Amino acid sequence: MIIDCHGHYTTEPPQLTSYRKEQLQELEIDSSFKPSAANFKCSDDEICERLEGAQLKLQRERGTDLTIFSPRASGMGHHLGNEQTSIYWTIICNNMIRRVCDLYPTNFVPVCQLPQYPGVSPANCIPELERCVKEMGFIGCNLNPDPSGAMWTDPPITDEWWFPIYEKLVELNVPAMLHVSGSCNPNFHPTGAHYLCADTTVFMQLILSDLFKRFPSLKFIIPHGGGAVPFHWGRYRGIAQDMGCPPLDELLLNNVFFDTCVYHQPGIDLLAKVIPIKNILFASEMVGAVRGIDPESGFNYDDTKRYIDSSQEISDQGKDQIFSENVYLVFPRLKKVMKG
Amino acid sequence: MIIDCHGHYTTEPPQLTSYRKEQLQELEIDSSFKPSAANFKCSDDEICERLEGAQLKLQRERGTDLTIFSPRASGMGHHLGNEQTSIYWTIICNNMIRRVCDLYPTNFVPVCQLPQYPGVSPANCIPELERCVKEMGFIGCNLNPDPSGAMWTDPPITDEWWFPIYEKLVELNVPAMLHVSGSCNPNFHPTGAHYLCADTTVFMQLILSDLFKRFPSLKFIIPHGGGAVPFHWGRYRGIAQDMGCPPLDELLLNNVFFDTCVYHQPGIDLLAKVIPIKNILFASEMVGAVRGIDPESGFNYDDTKRYIDSSQEISDQGKDQIFSENVYLVFPRLKKVMKG
Repeated sequence: MIIDCHGHYTTEPPQLTSYRKEQLQELEIDSSFKPSAANFKCSDDEICERLEGAQLKLQRERGTDLTIFSPRASGMGHHLGNEQTSIYWTIICNNMIRRVCDLYPTNFVPVCQLPQYPGVSPANCIPELERCVKEMGFIGCNLNPDPSGAMWTDPPITDEWWFPIYEKLVELNVPAMLHVSGSCNPNFHPTGAHYLCADTTVFMQLILSDLFKRFPSLKFIIPHGGGAVPFHWGRYRGIAQDMGCPPLDELLLNNVFFDTCVYHQPGIDLLAKVIPIKNILFASEMVGAVRGIDPESGFNYDDTKRYIDSSQEISDQGKDQIFSENVYLVFPRLKKVMKG
Repeated sequence: MIIDCHGHYTTEPPQLTSYRKEQLQELEIDSSFKPSAANFKCSDDEICERLEGAQLKLQRERGTDLTIFSPRASGMGHHLGNEQTSIYWTIICNNMIRRVCDLYPTNFVPVCQLPQYPGVSPANCIPELERCVKEMGFIGCNLNPDPSGAMWTDPPITDEWWFPIYEKLVELNVPAMLHVSGSCNPNFHPTGAHYLCADTTVFMQLILSDLFKRFPSLKFIIPHGGGAVPFHWGRYRGIAQDMGCPPLDELLLNNVFFDTCVYHQPGIDLLAKVIPIKNILFASEMVGAVRGIDPESGFNYDDTKRYIDSSQEISDQGKDQIFSENVYLVFPRLKKVMKG
């Protein structure tokens, strides 16, 4: 069983993006505009057709079985609109994920986005998280550590500002992938800078805190291989040591996991060499940030299964852990909702 | 000859930091305060004593010959005070670097900081850059791509906002290390997040521009091994390719260089595997971000010479390039100012 823990719905029907566009345009024209819940029509055939030519085709071609599937990350846009548009937008996006998973119950398992908004307590996301997990069988969520869109105006993720949502995650027994969305700061390209910087930044925030003493069963996945972290593993071990912290594996590695969205063989080899195998989850983020074929390999950059298959750093047992065993451990609700 | 291209004066005498502290305190009490140029007394013996126990001791122990030496990076604090305090602070810091290099002309060669201030044109840094290079024999500068201190309020480094300083760098034939300073955003730990994020961010900015078409002889060093860039080299190659850019080596690698401030063997091995050897410059940033001894190796984390010596990825010829040949090429004024 090969489970990709990080796939986004990047082949959504144009009706969905149109709804969002109109919602934001109305608000720009009239800041007192009250958005309405989506009245959204899209046939199953339309949904299927777009998935068949992309995510499903690639699953078959690459030999992956199941994708843990969430709304388009750059589309979350928590910094856009207002709190209410964020709620309606999130509901419709999550409902679409549920539809996809109902249409392809053996191919996709749902993870939700949350209706975050900068400056608004993450506690306000609890109703939607509960709806998704309790009523709709979602097994995790994407939590944006910077809802301001690369302005970084909210407190660090280790601040008590965030505790209400962590309490709920623990209670529901679901992990969070710490995944930012778009950038409204011209310094930060979204997929080429903001994503990787956020991954790096949250890891350092976690080193500085004792969050997991307070929430010992809380689980975070840091996407994109952890940003700069594995490449600078010595730096992080050294910084933590200089500060008198326990070793990183003791401090963080019961709670923090890295995915394999690293798009070349040497990167995956490094990841597997420095990060304990138990902390690595298979992921490709297809169809996502990089869509082309690497002329050096002849295969898609984001075909990360190939790198893991080929890695001399990972034993056969380690590959089983990365491809499925670790994923089951981090997503305790996964086995219960799997079909077929 | 082994040349460390990235050393900061982190053993400065307490009089220097006191001057800065007072300068900023006065300004806090009275925002109309006009700072005065430093009236700064410190004996040669005092300077020597502090260097002997740290940078010079480590040079001897590690077998490095020469350090390209600049003021403490976190001390630049371009976001603190105002434009005028930044000018006086920069002058005194650069003068101290000149003194150190006069005291130890075979151990240190000077690189300057610039009196940047957020929202103020980088053109205003030209007088100090010229003073350092033309009058005082400096061979390069540290240019802060985010003078706002992790608020990222100035334009990307590829914006014409920055062109006046690039024109001067080209005219003077000196490179810039793109090195941020402290962080006033609680989300970003300075050495554990802001530094690496900035390195990553500027590289992506460069991919998005044709800056080096306009400035074909401009040279940038991205410190800390380029942040997340080498670990995600496939991602960057893929993003550039998806955007229809030429390959990265053609687009950037005549102008962009990475240092070796990566504090573990697997990181250095990855760097040398994916980045062309001609683009790698030896550096340790000692005494700097990480001061401890790695229990896994028994040596200091920042003793990066060991990783290069031990790397199976680098030929003997490659090591010569990294340790000195590339450094001479990137710093054309280096050979002229070397003593002994």
